[in-house]
Amino acid sequence: MSVPKYRPKRSNNIQVRPFGALFQRRVCMSISPLAPDSFPDMPPIGGLSLATAASGMKYQGRDDMLLMRSIADSHFAGLFTQSDTAAAPVQWCQDRLAQALCQSRPAAILTNAGNANAFTGSKGHLATMATADALAKAGHIDKDAILLASTGVIGEPLDTDCLAAQIPHLLADDKASWHDAAKAIMTTDTFAKGATSTCQLDGKQVTICGIAKGSGMIAPDMATMLGYIATDAAISPDMLLHILRRANAQSFNAITVDSDTSTNDSVFAIATGVAGNDEITSEAHTDFNHLYHAIKTVMLDLAKQIVRDGEGTQKLITIDILGADNDSDAYKIGMSVANSPLVKTAVAGCDANWGRIVMAVGKAGIGIDQNVIGVRIGGFDVALAGQRVENFDETPVATHMQGQNIDIAVSVGTGSGTARVYTCDLTHGYISINADYRS
Amino acid sequence: MSVPKYRPKRSNNIQVRPFGALFQRRVCMSISPLAPDSFPDMPPIGGLSLATAASGMKYQGRDDMLLMRSIADSHFAGLFTQSDTAAAPVQWCQDRLAQALCQSRPAAILTNAGNANAFTGSKGHLATMATADALAKAGHIDKDAILLASTGVIGEPLDTDCLAAQIPHLLADDKASWHDAAKAIMTTDTFAKGATSTCQLDGKQVTICGIAKGSGMIAPDMATMLGYIATDAAISPDMLLHILRRANAQSFNAITVDSDTSTNDSVFAIATGVAGNDEITSEAHTDFNHLYHAIKTVMLDLAKQIVRDGEGTQKLITIDILGADNDSDAYKIGMSVANSPLVKTAVAGCDANWGRIVMAVGKAGIGIDQNVIGVRIGGFDVALAGQRVENFDETPVATHMQGQNIDIAVSVGTGSGTARVYTCDLTHGYISINADYRS
Repeated sequence: MSVPKYRPKRSNNIQVRPFGALFQRRVCMSISPLAPDSFPDMPPIGGLSLATAASGMKYQGRDDMLLMRSIADSHFAGLFTQSDTAAAPVQWCQDRLAQALCQSRPAAILTNAGNANAFTGSKGHLATMATADALAKAGHIDKDAILLASTGVIGEPLDTDCLAAQIPHLLADDKASWHDAAKAIMTTDTFAKGATSTCQLDGKQVTICGIAKGSGMIAPDMATMLGYIATDAAISPDMLLHILRRANAQSFNAITVDSDTSTNDSVFAIATGVAGNDEITSEAHTDFNHLYHAIKTVMLDLAKQIVRDGEGTQKLITIDILGADNDSDAYKIGMSVANSPLVKTAVAGCDANWGRIVMAVGKAGIGIDQNVIGVRIGGFDVALAGQRVENFDETPVATHMQGQNIDIAVSVGTGSGTARVYTCDLTHGYISINADYRS
Repeated sequence: MSVPKYRPKRSNNIQVRPFGALFQRRVCMSISPLAPDSFPDMPPIGGLSLATAASGMKYQGRDDMLLMRSIADSHFAGLFTQSDTAAAPVQWCQDRLAQALCQSRPAAILTNAGNANAFTGSKGHLATMATADALAKAGHIDKDAILLASTGVIGEPLDTDCLAAQIPHLLADDKASWHDAAKAIMTTDTFAKGATSTCQLDGKQVTICGIAKGSGMIAPDMATMLGYIATDAAISPDMLLHILRRANAQSFNAITVDSDTSTNDSVFAIATGVAGNDEITSEAHTDFNHLYHAIKTVMLDLAKQIVRDGEGTQKLITIDILGADNDSDAYKIGMSVANSPLVKTAVAGCDANWGRIVMAVGKAGIGIDQNVIGVRIGGFDVALAGQRVENFDETPVATHMQGQNIDIAVSVGTGSGTARVYTCDLTHGYISINADYRS
């Protein structure tokens, strides 16, 4: 086996910075002030191996490829962008998962960062095929049991030779940590994102580990950017997909950074079954809810980390909508507020601008009666029954607006529909990052 | 009659700058680089008088009220925001126009800038009633023949005493120019917006004059912010509304600055009939199209001026969508591109980032086939048949991106649906303006 030209040392230090031109620019932007103090301790998942490598395609001095391999009889599920311009690897995965081909044999997910292989036409499909071929041959994996994910610039042909050259190294050295894995899939992210949880199923301890990347072009329509959830639990493929879909609605699909939906949004779930619990094959299984909540915990944690790394963000905004006719209406109103540039710039300026919040509620076009609208900011009533509260004292609200975590709650009626969505403020940092980065 | 406390001198010089705190901040932002060289020469409209006054409510040293009065038998039409949180004056106008009460008698439109009287609950409705009452009594106008418009901060009670105090002055001195009128309705606008055209109807020369205001919270759902179109043509009320609606679809409804829809969007049309042409009472009238095009010319000019004054803008972006199944699909795709923060920041950075354009086409969710998408920027083919053109030379496109007028055309199929929409780039200026201004 040949030695790779460049293999950066792995360590547990956060090494997101001195990496190439892009990251040099992000050094100026610095790590998000909302980043967690450190990457969590995340144990390996039995039956799953991780490997990373540096293709040298775009970034210098950092890994930009991730191979996740699972043992036979692992189960996979995936959710993908609903964009009309979904990227070639998304279409590849959808075809494979629709045929349930990856569900009962050794399987793999290969990811590259720096080029999204999106809007690349027939070249893009040839590139997915060539990459899967190379991995299938070298790794003795059924080609149709290989899933592919790409993230980075849109519209540029993908150089598959760069990727193929690293496949032997990815197969030979598969002892990467979750932290290594999370770093290898980053693009404009300023920190690596990981989360883990455990639960007891059938008397057996089960572990869930997840990683994700994303900080711009975040308005998931099905899943956000790239997310990977792995567990050693035994669970049937259809129940794995069911849990993924349910948890996704309240995590990755409940966030927005900038209202722009990526061509490459993908979230994968892998269950190796190594924990040895009684396989969960229906929602009626006594352990279904335990696993559901453990997985949802990881996904929500990752989703919020993505918002905390929203391009240029200084504040995490949590928006609760209450009293809508149904959850779907509440969600639409919540996203209308979360995507409003005027609400997000007001938060950036520490301005408790309830007028803009009400404007964004109104433009959602749900047909609510404005005379019942109430607005709370930081737990303080700002408006009740369609107008500002009498003798409003803005002081405590202004203090809340100075913080990093901004809570907005809007009551829009007496219905039972609710939604909680997350976003970040819109700052000069977002402009700086996106006015000079071709992503 | 008492002399008003403060009546600034009127002149034809552009006087948008040394006005109060808000305008002092906008001095830092300076007049939009896309502003026209000067305000156009706009003749009076026979049968219509204009008056402006300074309420002192918010701005110091400038007029912030506008009264337009028309002679008997003038015809009015209006289009308004479709927001669920439409402001009290919008509801007032909708009620009046629904009853056709202002159509055949002396009538008036009173506008104030600085407070939108939006989300003000029952207080807001009392304020509209009190203001209309005061004007009706002092001016001997039927209260139901008075239309009201407000623009400015949302959620704050409107001080009607300030407005009522100026009504005698507005009635006594009604010789304001269109330029005075356009300046009196400004809020964050950096320049006054006016446009005029003429046409021959039935051998008579007819004049159209229009003014508008708006530079943020611009994503009209029916009309944008405040627009006023006046003509001396004779035309029936239903035909006036018909023309207003048709022209609006291709002018004010075809622009977006920041995807946020105002609570106060209103556009009014007034036809005094003083020109003496044979009244246009149906679309089949030989002169219908002449008047339609003359009015549309004014409205499109004003709409583009609003984009040219988009908060923080440096570039006007014209987006053509071609080949959609129908105009509605084309419009949705166009607005998806026009509202994408990533497309708008790329343009701000002079980056011909076709990948982001394609992303925004995809997220519109129309169900187009990405393999037929073509993208032209500045007239140069960038992508054809779903991928970047072979041997793409970015040099001429990069030169185009350095300019102030950016043209993007996207072909999405072979259908006959087209749309042209206008937006501006997203810059640090937008953040600066909106992170510290309560609008």
